[in-house]
Amino acid sequence: MGKGSRLSEMFGNLGSFLRICIFRVLSMGPIPNHFAFIMDGNRRYAKKKNMKEGAGHRAGFLALISLLKYCYELGVKYVTVYAFSIDNFKRSPDEVKDLMNLLLEKIEELLRDESIVNQYGVRVYFIGNLKLLIEPVRIAAEKVMKATANNTNYTLLICIAYTSLDEIVHAVQVSCKNVTSSCIATGVEEDGNKNKNNMTLRAVQGSYVDTWYNYQAMKENRMGNGASASKESGDMQGECSIIKLVDIEKHMYMAVAPKPDILIRSSGETRLSNFLLWQASECLLYSPDALWPEVGLWHLLWAVLNFQRNHSYLEKKRRQL
Amino acid sequence: MGKGSRLSEMFGNLGSFLRICIFRVLSMGPIPNHFAFIMDGNRRYAKKKNMKEGAGHRAGFLALISLLKYCYELGVKYVTVYAFSIDNFKRSPDEVKDLMNLLLEKIEELLRDESIVNQYGVRVYFIGNLKLLIEPVRIAAEKVMKATANNTNYTLLICIAYTSLDEIVHAVQVSCKNVTSSCIATGVEEDGNKNKNNMTLRAVQGSYVDTWYNYQAMKENRMGNGASASKESGDMQGECSIIKLVDIEKHMYMAVAPKPDILIRSSGETRLSNFLLWQASECLLYSPDALWPEVGLWHLLWAVLNFQRNHSYLEKKRRQL
Repeated sequence: MGKGSRLSEMFGNLGSFLRICIFRVLSMGPIPNHFAFIMDGNRRYAKKKNMKEGAGHRAGFLALISLLKYCYELGVKYVTVYAFSIDNFKRSPDEVKDLMNLLLEKIEELLRDESIVNQYGVRVYFIGNLKLLIEPVRIAAEKVMKATANNTNYTLLICIAYTSLDEIVHAVQVSCKNVTSSCIATGVEEDGNKNKNNMTLRAVQGSYVDTWYNYQAMKENRMGNGASASKESGDMQGECSIIKLVDIEKHMYMAVAPKPDILIRSSGETRLSNFLLWQASECLLYSPDALWPEVGLWHLLWAVLNFQRNHSYLEKKRRQL
Repeated sequence: MGKGSRLSEMFGNLGSFLRICIFRVLSMGPIPNHFAFIMDGNRRYAKKKNMKEGAGHRAGFLALISLLKYCYELGVKYVTVYAFSIDNFKRSPDEVKDLMNLLLEKIEELLRDESIVNQYGVRVYFIGNLKLLIEPVRIAAEKVMKATANNTNYTLLICIAYTSLDEIVHAVQVSCKNVTSSCIATGVEEDGNKNKNNMTLRAVQGSYVDTWYNYQAMKENRMGNGASASKESGDMQGECSIIKLVDIEKHMYMAVAPKPDILIRSSGETRLSNFLLWQASECLLYSPDALWPEVGLWHLLWAVLNFQRNHSYLEKKRRQL
């Protein structure tokens, strides 16, 4: 081993040691449970560095692996990344092909023993309309989900062929189908079923009804109690087929994870671009100016510090909901 | 007229003149069509200035009126404000009562001849689950909507008893009901109806199917053409009751306006707090540190400059969708 490599190893160890010290200090405060990343700026990075476009995406992948490691060292249980939007299919066929090949290569790497998911015990979900993918990518994705199904330490959600509106519409379609079939199965005239529906409706809206104003409102509108609701002249098909927030929520692709605490979008962009719209309702958004391959430890630390600063306020808000 | 008031009038005129000059220059570039505001920090402002809580909300209302004027002078056609969330009903009964009284007072003021809506020809919509409001507020809101229904210059959307998830669930429920009744009315076995449904499904997803990969995907999944779809062994009730993105979209309360271009949330907060989640997918988010009553002309100008900087990129994105 040469002097140079010994030195770089020493600095590497020192870096890891410092990082672990910083993480220890941070862990005295609350740690976010779920990080989400919009990996924006890979192509701009390639342009800036005079690299081929594909090289930008590869650099972005390396940045992601580093960030995942930091997240796991910090104890962040869930990480969601926006790998490929349905809208990305609109890019030039060559770029889509290159991206699909890169995805296939990286997904297959996850199956190796030394991959980050096996190293840290990470369960992987691919989130999105997977039917839109070419067969090799879909099969590889399904293989990884199956192979990591028993990992319980951390969860990595990779959004691929995903948009948030597509996810919502899909969840609505499944909910509709289930509600309709449950109506057909149990018979719409059955009173018990109707009451159950009303109960759920009340459970969802129950959080609003403890102020005087809502109590007032409740007396005169459809949020009434079971007795008054059963007096209403609603058609039974309609009663039975009411889809509730909880129905839609449980059929979301993202229902396997809690809502994200922080969403980082690189490149200084402050748009959500059809990513986790439903889930990001109370999420902190952080948009560092760095292009995605440049996002590193310091951005992550800054995001966690911001989260800690806001934490007690957000907890209070969440308890209210 | 004293010397002091003459001076202040002169400076006022100079201010207006300068503002108009700046707006002229800005108007050389694209002007956002739709601004949305989350008016955060009224209570903190009151605390900071040692005022009563209600005084913070009143100061916030004045800031809103100024911003609306600037927007109209600039030619911004749509403005949406988050006035009262469903979650706000959870605040202390006294605060809810005060806020409702303030809302009632301000809504009734809109009916006056000299109000901003009559001055600028603004059509007002109250957006949200209005049934949750106490009767006087609801009646006043309905009166204003009716009174301004023929105004065509600008549109003001006031979100009240609103959350985005409530809006989505409401739109889904209406869509469900409509789809179910149209099935019952036309008969599910009718082939023409089925084809119409498939056509709409293709129209929604059509934008994805022009790449090679989607073409590949199309051959093997449910996005197939009418012929292959009719061969599928799906149950007809299910076929008929598929709810599509366009159905949900057209039943949103916010369907009366285009999607917002910029969302400003004051107080440096970077969360959407259940506001326009569906609509904010491609919206710029801007979070100045100022508390809401402190937000003024310069923040608006900064937001417009940001919008102009991003405009060509966003237009390209929109054309792709």
